[in-house]
Amino acid sequence: MRINVLLYPDFETLDVFGPVEVFGKVPSWSIQYYSATGGIISNQDNVQIMTSSIEIIHDQQLDVLFIPGGTGARSLILQPDFIAQIKTLAQHSHYVLTVCTGSALLAKTGLLDGKLATSNKRSFEWVKSTSNKPQWQQKARWIRDDKYYTSSGISAGMDMALAFIRDQLDESTAEQIAYRIEYSWHKHPDEDPFCQQPYTGKTK
Amino acid sequence: MRINVLLYPDFETLDVFGPVEVFGKVPSWSIQYYSATGGIISNQDNVQIMTSSIEIIHDQQLDVLFIPGGTGARSLILQPDFIAQIKTLAQHSHYVLTVCTGSALLAKTGLLDGKLATSNKRSFEWVKSTSNKPQWQQKARWIRDDKYYTSSGISAGMDMALAFIRDQLDESTAEQIAYRIEYSWHKHPDEDPFCQQPYTGKTK
Repeated sequence: MRINVLLYPDFETLDVFGPVEVFGKVPSWSIQYYSATGGIISNQDNVQIMTSSIEIIHDQQLDVLFIPGGTGARSLILQPDFIAQIKTLAQHSHYVLTVCTGSALLAKTGLLDGKLATSNKRSFEWVKSTSNKPQWQQKARWIRDDKYYTSSGISAGMDMALAFIRDQLDESTAEQIAYRIEYSWHKHPDEDPFCQQPYTGKTK
Repeated sequence: MRINVLLYPDFETLDVFGPVEVFGKVPSWSIQYYSATGGIISNQDNVQIMTSSIEIIHDQQLDVLFIPGGTGARSLILQPDFIAQIKTLAQHSHYVLTVCTGSALLAKTGLLDGKLATSNKRSFEWVKSTSNKPQWQQKARWIRDDKYYTSSGISAGMDMALAFIRDQLDESTAEQIAYRIEYSWHKHPDEDPFCQQPYTGKTK
């Protein structure tokens, strides 16, 4: 299984590296990092990460397309050429996983039309405003509909990544990875302690 | 507050980028990435991160030294020159935070001698074998002793990072950051669901 991570300027750090930590614990899975033009991609946490250009991905490498969220998504969603590139990659990938506002980028392609999907709780109204055709679900840690997995905000990507491993392999493997990385996995997609808005001081 | 992240080949991905996600949400804090020689540092998840050389850090920039764990720590701990560099940086930093087996690197400097400290649960015996002078605590999500914070494995770094923000600022700020990144913070340092060994299938 090959995970193709699509990066862009001002991606959200943990959206990417939480799931990467999880996927990296499956011995036969590999992770590659791409961006529109390749080279160093940086974000608001001063992370500078090397990427390859998405132009060089071969169709036979399109197992999983992974799209994080981030403030950079708000300008990218207005770039039709980039959205068209995402659409092509997503159509040819066996699975597409998004974290946080990454689902807005995917929704903009039209591929989530009519499908159940979720996104970051703090940006939910903005996400809905960018595309009203998916069946946006407010209360969900993550959602799978067909080959599309969308997760809630930031940390929720790790729960979705573990669920993806459960779906592809088995629950015991996912549990052992969560245990190994000392992570308290929210195992159930409807276990979403963060759907309440605004912040009230109680998160559980 | 300036967070100086010390990277080395085969650092553990989430050890670094979990806390980075948390620290990055404090508006006035900045994060810099260093390594022994500077340049690209890569790890087992194919992450390639640009770093500066630790030679260029000025004393007045040494607010927080942050040392992650990772399989790379096992060879670095045998390199006296590198350990001496860590010792100098740690002595001149206001605070030193480690995640996972990063505490073994710090312990090797002698600066944790007699102090309470913890580390990754899966590597605990190895960590203890590298230095028997700290008071290693098996059951702890993280521990603060004087200016030193050491955390348990991988995901525990996020809980420690939030606790560090609580100590430096206030609990409400830490809670709001946890909520914003949709992370279920283990608020109490002795709330450690992963100290049981070996894996039994129950993590809570």
